[in-house]
Amino acid sequence: MGFKHLVIVRFKEGTVVEQIMKGLEKLVSEVNLVKTFAWGEDLESPEMLTQGFTHAISMTFDKKQDYTAFQTHPNHVEFSATFSAAIEKIVVLCFSSVQVKPAIA
Amino acid sequence: MGFKHLVIVRFKEGTVVEQIMKGLEKLVSEVNLVKTFAWGEDLESPEMLTQGFTHAISMTFDKKQDYTAFQTHPNHVEFSATFSAAIEKIVVLCFSSVQVKPAIA
Repeated sequence: MGFKHLVIVRFKEGTVVEQIMKGLEKLVSEVNLVKTFAWGEDLESPEMLTQGFTHAISMTFDKKQDYTAFQTHPNHVEFSATFSAAIEKIVVLCFSSVQVKPAIA
Repeated sequence: MGFKHLVIVRFKEGTVVEQIMKGLEKLVSEVNLVKTFAWGEDLESPEMLTQGFTHAISMTFDKKQDYTAFQTHPNHVEFSATFSAAIEKIVVLCFSSVQVKPAIA
């Protein structure tokens, strides 16, 4: 079902998030290893639920090896420097995704 | 692009996660409002990245109203009691998902 890379992040105050996301969109469009890419911003959930995190980033790879190769890809390494500098706090999870729906009718 | 409900969780020690996930799979197969459902467990990333979180759960709805209706659905309310009791820590994010790939060639 593919290998998923999930990032939950809160950016530092003053970060131009739009610029970060443009850089990320550019990165994933350049690197063919990334099969799907989506992101979103939670603008309304209570702090009790979000724990202060504001953005989610999700990528899918065909297999774990592709994810590993992506991590060391020069474009990713270059982007990571910018991204890391903007992080207030972050959670990163990587896993083989179990897709239950739409498999079930 | 749909409305996403994302949960990052660490279960209490002794939780039978398989049982929780079976309950969740049953729930989403019964409630038509849920359009996609996937979950995964991170078994290898360093604590520095996962922050102790182990599982990710992702659901997609056609629109925000469907998510709201799901929250108050009797089956969800019933399941939530079991789920909540097993939580060690949790982050919940809800957002309109910006799907960049595969839209870009």
